[in-house]
Amino acid sequence: MSRARFSLNAATTKRWPVDELLAGAAAAGIGGVGLWREETRAYGVEKAAALARDLGVPITTLCRGGFFQEPGWYDENRRAIDEAHTLGTPVLVLVCGGLPDGSRDVDGARRHVGDAIGELVPHARAAGVRLAIEPLHPMFASDRCVVSTLGQALDLARPYPAESVGVCVDTYHVWWDPEVWEQIARAGAEHRIATFQAADWITPLPEGVLLGRALPGDGVIELRRFREAVDAAGYTGPVEVEVFHADVWARPGAQVLAEALDGYLAHVA
Amino acid sequence: MSRARFSLNAATTKRWPVDELLAGAAAAGIGGVGLWREETRAYGVEKAAALARDLGVPITTLCRGGFFQEPGWYDENRRAIDEAHTLGTPVLVLVCGGLPDGSRDVDGARRHVGDAIGELVPHARAAGVRLAIEPLHPMFASDRCVVSTLGQALDLARPYPAESVGVCVDTYHVWWDPEVWEQIARAGAEHRIATFQAADWITPLPEGVLLGRALPGDGVIELRRFREAVDAAGYTGPVEVEVFHADVWARPGAQVLAEALDGYLAHVA
Repeated sequence: MSRARFSLNAATTKRWPVDELLAGAAAAGIGGVGLWREETRAYGVEKAAALARDLGVPITTLCRGGFFQEPGWYDENRRAIDEAHTLGTPVLVLVCGGLPDGSRDVDGARRHVGDAIGELVPHARAAGVRLAIEPLHPMFASDRCVVSTLGQALDLARPYPAESVGVCVDTYHVWWDPEVWEQIARAGAEHRIATFQAADWITPLPEGVLLGRALPGDGVIELRRFREAVDAAGYTGPVEVEVFHADVWARPGAQVLAEALDGYLAHVA
Repeated sequence: MSRARFSLNAATTKRWPVDELLAGAAAAGIGGVGLWREETRAYGVEKAAALARDLGVPITTLCRGGFFQEPGWYDENRRAIDEAHTLGTPVLVLVCGGLPDGSRDVDGARRHVGDAIGELVPHARAAGVRLAIEPLHPMFASDRCVVSTLGQALDLARPYPAESVGVCVDTYHVWWDPEVWEQIARAGAEHRIATFQAADWITPLPEGVLLGRALPGDGVIELRRFREAVDAAGYTGPVEVEVFHADVWARPGAQVLAEALDGYLAHVA
């Protein structure tokens, strides 16, 4: 039961080829995998979709659309939506992008994120793909994502139908927020929780801070409390473990899958 | 006029001895310096106080009290208050500390911060020293400061008299917060702005993330907008530039003072 809710995000096993990841997920009897666009395109989107279908492994999310400060954002995000559709993935996670080069206008960048999502809604709706705005930890606010809190993500989603625009609640990004419990409840009441991801927080952070996450249980986040909170808010979808860390990437994929599943069962489920 | 409002926080010129820093500040005709306890104690608190008086250099803040998760926090913070009193410093900045070792209870740690500050209020009041709760960037939430937003700092300050407990608004720590402008206005209305510090945000962050700040103008923060916001909220005190960066520390103190002052005049004043 618990195992069937667990999904392994491919970023956790960065060097595991897509076909081996899918086969590993099927062998382990887990609930699905989250895929990333670069690796999936390199393997072949149609091929990955067919293999996942054959193996009976759901693709729980596709990561990522967004980066709305880049010149080609509109076409690129339409392609991402199409890929999610091809994969049969219900959720496209949006990492919304940082400040444009040379800009100090974070308010403007945030407004642009909202507008850009609005422009994508018709295509997402037609494709049956839900866009999930992911607030990223504020340490990424300038270079990766100007959406920094769950409350802000919900404000940005608000103008659009909940079936087309939701949020991604990732423990790593929101655990520090004094308002997070209230905002999770709000997210549920507004029917916006599109996906729930779990990773743990450890220090010291590495240079560049991207690869600083830990597997569930190795850090300081009250992970089970978060899972209980999204459940209480009405979320019934998968729990994706998504960890970026050089040490984790250095280990074999099947071993990391087993470790992530153990951490999930002991600290999240 | 503007120069007289500028204060150089000693953390910006980490290797500059206290007496040279004070003499440099006097020579530059700036409004004051912010001192750190370790270096000031090593030099001698009474001696530093006498030299600052002789040179006519106000000590705008003493950094730092806090770290309330450490066993000896009460006595240590009383000593910090006494030192601020000896230095004639109106403000003791509190870096409130992270999670206790092995703990995941961030709510409990936050409650403890509020309780601890309450226990210090009588001594601070008797010494004529104002405690300034400094929200630190959420990337420090587990290891340095569980107080992560200005709104949270104001909530913690609320039970205590504004003349004894205020907040430190540091651009580096709060720039990313979607609610920061509203909370600065609130801080003014509640008479809580004890000090205002300016540093700029750059990426990539270095390993450990502590030494990643930039001098005013070198990063992405709308610094003048922050200075105007605290002014509009009724703050009339000094503007301290406080930057931690290995490259800045490697340069001579007088040169860094001049650079910080230039950055302040061009981007903050």
